[in-house]
Amino acid sequence: MRNEIRKDYLLDKWVIIAVERAKRPTDFKTEVQEINKAVNCPFCAGNENMTPPARMLYIPVDDKKIIIDRDRNSEKRRSDWIIRVVPNLFPALQPSEKAEVFSNYVSKISGIGDHEVIIESPDHHEQIQVMSDDQVKLVFRAYRDRFRALTSYDFVKFVSIFRNYGKKAGASLSHPHSQIIATPIVPVSFFQEIKRLNFDGKRCKYDEIIEHERKSERFILERENVIAFSPFASTTPFEVWIFVKRHVHNILELSDEERDDLAIATRDILSAISKILNDPPYNYAIWQTVNEKEYHMHIRIFPRLTIYAGFEYNTNIAINPVPPEHAAKYIRETLYEICKITNDN
Amino acid sequence: MRNEIRKDYLLDKWVIIAVERAKRPTDFKTEVQEINKAVNCPFCAGNENMTPPARMLYIPVDDKKIIIDRDRNSEKRRSDWIIRVVPNLFPALQPSEKAEVFSNYVSKISGIGDHEVIIESPDHHEQIQVMSDDQVKLVFRAYRDRFRALTSYDFVKFVSIFRNYGKKAGASLSHPHSQIIATPIVPVSFFQEIKRLNFDGKRCKYDEIIEHERKSERFILERENVIAFSPFASTTPFEVWIFVKRHVHNILELSDEERDDLAIATRDILSAISKILNDPPYNYAIWQTVNEKEYHMHIRIFPRLTIYAGFEYNTNIAINPVPPEHAAKYIRETLYEICKITNDN
Repeated sequence: MRNEIRKDYLLDKWVIIAVERAKRPTDFKTEVQEINKAVNCPFCAGNENMTPPARMLYIPVDDKKIIIDRDRNSEKRRSDWIIRVVPNLFPALQPSEKAEVFSNYVSKISGIGDHEVIIESPDHHEQIQVMSDDQVKLVFRAYRDRFRALTSYDFVKFVSIFRNYGKKAGASLSHPHSQIIATPIVPVSFFQEIKRLNFDGKRCKYDEIIEHERKSERFILERENVIAFSPFASTTPFEVWIFVKRHVHNILELSDEERDDLAIATRDILSAISKILNDPPYNYAIWQTVNEKEYHMHIRIFPRLTIYAGFEYNTNIAINPVPPEHAAKYIRETLYEICKITNDN
Repeated sequence: MRNEIRKDYLLDKWVIIAVERAKRPTDFKTEVQEINKAVNCPFCAGNENMTPPARMLYIPVDDKKIIIDRDRNSEKRRSDWIIRVVPNLFPALQPSEKAEVFSNYVSKISGIGDHEVIIESPDHHEQIQVMSDDQVKLVFRAYRDRFRALTSYDFVKFVSIFRNYGKKAGASLSHPHSQIIATPIVPVSFFQEIKRLNFDGKRCKYDEIIEHERKSERFILERENVIAFSPFASTTPFEVWIFVKRHVHNILELSDEERDDLAIATRDILSAISKILNDPPYNYAIWQTVNEKEYHMHIRIFPRLTIYAGFEYNTNIAINPVPPEHAAKYIRETLYEICKITNDN
């Protein structure tokens, strides 16, 4: 295998698969993730006064039942939650009545939107990759609930649900959390993808790609409602895409079973990546649309092992030293081991 | 001033200028750049055998004159150079006779091209931001010479000349160096820019933008042949663009005076940024084309103070906590101080 320049399935986005600088998992010296102390952590249970009042709280009432509440009183906040949603203290975008659009020789829009933090657990160390089935399912339910709440505003045209893990992946606090930013514009790349998805009311190009990748060396995992693979033009080592098999455009459209499958598959794959690469920093995000039914939602995971540098800025061409075919093999084998252990117990 | 979403002058590329999380220079805790020891540095004078033979060497013969040579003999290498160009030991792309283009449900091209390192100084610590006038001019002359050499191959359609400074900006070795990657494809963003530049044989859209930014709050510096400003939709804090005023599409087209002006302005601006932000990691690259005369070449500098994370992957929308109007003011004032000191001495 020699170096190759590969194109994204849909976008005019290229990547250099640099096998001549190929790396094995042990070649990546991932440093131990810096963990802020639980003491004075604004996201730990008991420290609720260090954040704004919660917009949404998930509170267990007995073994099975969970009720949803919010902090009704800014003086006295609930601390019996298992998931807590708060507005971001330093929002990238904020709600507003009035949006100004200005365009002259330059174009701009007022920064309206919203920015929330989903505190995924009261436990400072319960990251997604080590989370229980029930908790990770609840995190994805919270994603759904907040997607619904934020898309009720007319000015919200797109909702980005994402997770930064580790300092090098942009996480400033180590307590388990995801973020949501609602924007007044749809990112251009989504329009470009949609244009090339050729959705005919039933099937889109991603359905074809799924069929193909199921039989390729890049295949990772298939369960009742989801399928995962390393994309042909992976921009980072060990990049993974997890599709919901049915053509749906966002998390609101998923059945509970589909959402649960997606949550568990995400957890399992992150757990395998964490094992292979010694707990690397990573980002994941949900690729989905608010109104555009032509889109086919999925999750993309990006372990952060390489650095976007001068060449990438200049060309928008990433350099990836791990062929996705190698990455998929490692992940498949590790998932097999993990599931074997789970089944044996 | 409130948060704004701004669009690139030409591309459909948006950025959130998040003034509500606005930062002053001292808010960025830049760590002291890790410097590999000069001992065993493969780029230091005396260690030439740790790299492949040089393709090009700049050797001073007297006060004014510099001759160009190469390592003719792989056993005995010259060590009297002041700039040395070697092939990259782990090339992203390599020359080859045969390019294969494969396209089915996925598209790929053989990884042909080239990848070189320009060792900018025999001195382990002489980074561009502290370089003498003569040396930085010679670095830019080497850029020109290598651009000429690499574009002599038919398969080279684009040449990326870039510099990574600091570990966080992707530099694996700290000895002063730039890199050049020649690719068999033109990055898509350049075609998009060209399409919107509306070049009429004399003027392009960038000429209009230059005229406008010269009078804006984002203006930084103007000299005989160059002009610099912080772009309206800066994707990183303290991003700077330096234009050659005359419409030329690449470094080969520059007069010696223009190239020297560009070199000195780049050094001066990096020196100011280094002073303001306490020696931050940065990338710079030359935006230029090989064959497309419609393009207007310039340099872009990106200090690395923020992290590209889940939201940015998902949306291609950067979040920049420093309005370019603030950044430009700091850089202008610091340049004034630096030049004052230089003139006083």
